[in-house]
Amino acid sequence: MLTNSIHEVLENAAAAMQALKQYVPEQKAVFLRSVATEIDALGDALLQQAATETNLSIERLRGERARTTGQLNLFADMLMEGSWVEAVIDTALPNRTPPKPDLRRMLFSIGPIVVFGASNFPFAYSTAGGDTASALAAGCPVIVKAHPAHPATSQMVFQAIQTAIQKNNMPLYTVQHVTDSSFEAGKALVQHPLTAGVGFTGSLSGGRALYNYAVEREKPIPVFAEMGSINPVLLLPDAMKEKTAAIAKEYAASIVLGMGQFCTNPGLILCIKNEQLTIFLQELSRQIEASIPAAMLHEGIHQAYFTKMKNALLQKGVMLLQQSKTALHPMDALPTVAVVDATVFLNNPLLKEEVFGPYSLIVQCSDIQELLGVWKTVSGQLTTSIMGTENDFVNFPEIALIATEIAGRIVFNGVPTGVEVCPAMVHGGPYPACTDSRFTAVGIHAVKRWVRPVAFQNAPESLLPAELKNSNPYKIWRMVNNQLTKEAIVS
Amino acid sequence: MLTNSIHEVLENAAAAMQALKQYVPEQKAVFLRSVATEIDALGDALLQQAATETNLSIERLRGERARTTGQLNLFADMLMEGSWVEAVIDTALPNRTPPKPDLRRMLFSIGPIVVFGASNFPFAYSTAGGDTASALAAGCPVIVKAHPAHPATSQMVFQAIQTAIQKNNMPLYTVQHVTDSSFEAGKALVQHPLTAGVGFTGSLSGGRALYNYAVEREKPIPVFAEMGSINPVLLLPDAMKEKTAAIAKEYAASIVLGMGQFCTNPGLILCIKNEQLTIFLQELSRQIEASIPAAMLHEGIHQAYFTKMKNALLQKGVMLLQQSKTALHPMDALPTVAVVDATVFLNNPLLKEEVFGPYSLIVQCSDIQELLGVWKTVSGQLTTSIMGTENDFVNFPEIALIATEIAGRIVFNGVPTGVEVCPAMVHGGPYPACTDSRFTAVGIHAVKRWVRPVAFQNAPESLLPAELKNSNPYKIWRMVNNQLTKEAIVS
Repeated sequence: MLTNSIHEVLENAAAAMQALKQYVPEQKAVFLRSVATEIDALGDALLQQAATETNLSIERLRGERARTTGQLNLFADMLMEGSWVEAVIDTALPNRTPPKPDLRRMLFSIGPIVVFGASNFPFAYSTAGGDTASALAAGCPVIVKAHPAHPATSQMVFQAIQTAIQKNNMPLYTVQHVTDSSFEAGKALVQHPLTAGVGFTGSLSGGRALYNYAVEREKPIPVFAEMGSINPVLLLPDAMKEKTAAIAKEYAASIVLGMGQFCTNPGLILCIKNEQLTIFLQELSRQIEASIPAAMLHEGIHQAYFTKMKNALLQKGVMLLQQSKTALHPMDALPTVAVVDATVFLNNPLLKEEVFGPYSLIVQCSDIQELLGVWKTVSGQLTTSIMGTENDFVNFPEIALIATEIAGRIVFNGVPTGVEVCPAMVHGGPYPACTDSRFTAVGIHAVKRWVRPVAFQNAPESLLPAELKNSNPYKIWRMVNNQLTKEAIVS
Repeated sequence: MLTNSIHEVLENAAAAMQALKQYVPEQKAVFLRSVATEIDALGDALLQQAATETNLSIERLRGERARTTGQLNLFADMLMEGSWVEAVIDTALPNRTPPKPDLRRMLFSIGPIVVFGASNFPFAYSTAGGDTASALAAGCPVIVKAHPAHPATSQMVFQAIQTAIQKNNMPLYTVQHVTDSSFEAGKALVQHPLTAGVGFTGSLSGGRALYNYAVEREKPIPVFAEMGSINPVLLLPDAMKEKTAAIAKEYAASIVLGMGQFCTNPGLILCIKNEQLTIFLQELSRQIEASIPAAMLHEGIHQAYFTKMKNALLQKGVMLLQQSKTALHPMDALPTVAVVDATVFLNNPLLKEEVFGPYSLIVQCSDIQELLGVWKTVSGQLTTSIMGTENDFVNFPEIALIATEIAGRIVFNGVPTGVEVCPAMVHGGPYPACTDSRFTAVGIHAVKRWVRPVAFQNAPESLLPAELKNSNPYKIWRMVNNQLTKEAIVS
């Protein structure tokens, strides 16, 4: 796609931005629900297309589609509830010296957002995924750069979006679909002056490249790039005593789930070298040995997995624990777990790198202090998980606060795989999990990435947005003179 | 200051960060109030020191000190009210398939913040100013890089902060003061791995330089740089008919207030060429002619003002309207207004640049369409002001939505100078007013720059922060299962 086509796309998006300002929350909510409906209406044909392009199973894709439509509906609910706009009103005190003005503020869309989807979630993190849904909820037009690994799937979903746009009389270019898979097209989109923000899910190098393009612009724009994680797991001593084999089974399943192709895959397990660890490793080994390989998403990911996994195993001091013993088909991943001592791990930065696939590295520590020390060196994750009993938590109460510096989500006595779509979810974290730890990709707060506050001082009632009018026509929660209320303001 | 001293400063800040985690909101609120008290306790000596270093009047400084202590108390109030942490709780549904986990999230400090103060507000945007106050409220330790234009003032304020730290048993390095004025020290602070964020108020070139250092780091960090504004003013036709002379007087006063040394100074006035404009220009001219020059903040600002003002007047098509006729003392600014036609303005980008001082450029437009067209080319401001009657607003209702794209604050029938410190204030805007339009430097939302969300999944009650415990001990507003409530959760 030539640069002048990118230019046309952005001009169209800018026009859609202006048109969208005239749409009320209910219209946008109805539109989001309609996108969900149209995606469902594609039926099994969509699931089959995606299965062909990604090697994912139909059941997995059915579940993912439900999550995708669930996200769209969550944002529709958010729009109808209305308080997400953070309406704050401070009424005037004209007789004060100096007079206090009337000040009212709320959130507005920042402008057209370019969304780069992920290959490992062809629905939920792609064309109509969370970045698109949150940007639309924010009132931003979206330009989706179709992922080259599932172009036909993306096109089908885009068609569903187009149907929803037409059925609901939304601006024609509310969502656009760029199929040029070239690197230059991506750069041109990020650097076009009319682009206001970027959402990306993918590799560290890909995300950082886009971030670098965005920050060198004359007018820098925000980039929310979610770039992977090793999701360190802590196995505390008492939990290891009580539930040794159970933890091994639970984690083996999480490591191989989806052939490890989740950004929440547990790639690092920290434990103390003792009798329980020996039993744990035996059970983990059994589970991994018996695990069934399956095809990875695409050849690029497949090659990268084997390259990185083999390279990790070649590192001095890294001991292969076990691999699946089932024969591999082409494109299959090979579930693999390895073990290393803490001192070796601390001295080889390569061992902290994400190996995207069903691979996990167990780090053996001499005691809890060494374990906590290793943990603190892998800050910058989406999640960290802690397996512990009440006794462990009494013995190591500092663990929760340390965890808050390491990741955006702290999982207790569970696995990190499985991201609940709900208001309290945080899917984000310190760098390099994300380029901005202050935001989340999942949950209603995901909308905050795409909005900016604007204040109106002494505005005439007629020019105020509905959410800031005295009458509060949408009856939303607002902060009025420091009180949270839904009441109208009587002047 | 050698690099190893910067390193020591950041290590101290990191230690303070850990210690601060043990402090409850009330302790932090009491500390902020105590900082305010200790600043007041410096008495007139502080005002006199600042007057010596800045040439500002004692009354102006007295008012600014009140604003500074007001900000500190505003954040203390915010901490005691407690809902700023955005506590969101989604309780578990263990019998669902798959089981729904318990998810709870709130905001946490991102880490040590480096604050670069402004020379034009030696109290409110400096050592104990808004960036410092908001960062402390967020639980972040602060490293203030003292402004070289008012070092003794900064030192006195820092002493007051130290007194408050000691009196309240806060961690020793909660706030640190770096007096090395070198460019290298600033760069080292921004690029140190332990620095988590940067607040800056000053010039476009200074702010962009720091932003560029921050984004090239291995782990990029957020920079909130507020870098100036020309604060365009629209004089709508009916208002010009009804209040011609009154508007001229009001704006003349705003242009020369503080010798124009406010980021909110109105540097651009857009109007339609007609009879009223002639009268307006005559009155404005009278006011400016009679205005009294005063000393600027420091020599650097003084020189820059004359250089940029003279350069603007030299531009083809720019016509000097009037200057103050009073003889100048050394360091005095020279109030100046100039006039240019819209077509000339549109073709010379230099005319959009901020001239920091008592200078304003009036742009004559042939009609309202041309006026709106010029207005749209100067997007990226802190404020934009609209002088209009009800009739004007009926005739041009689109004006409010256009304004939301231009600036962070829209002022109706008033001047932009004068920033009310209240929850609804937005002091920020699209680039180049700020490096991130999604945040504000003033008001309680200023704290959002320095925090990140963390979610706890299935956490044991004992490890949850107080704000997320079932019992809600601080009785704060929380979103629980989509309901806004202060009630405890009964499991």
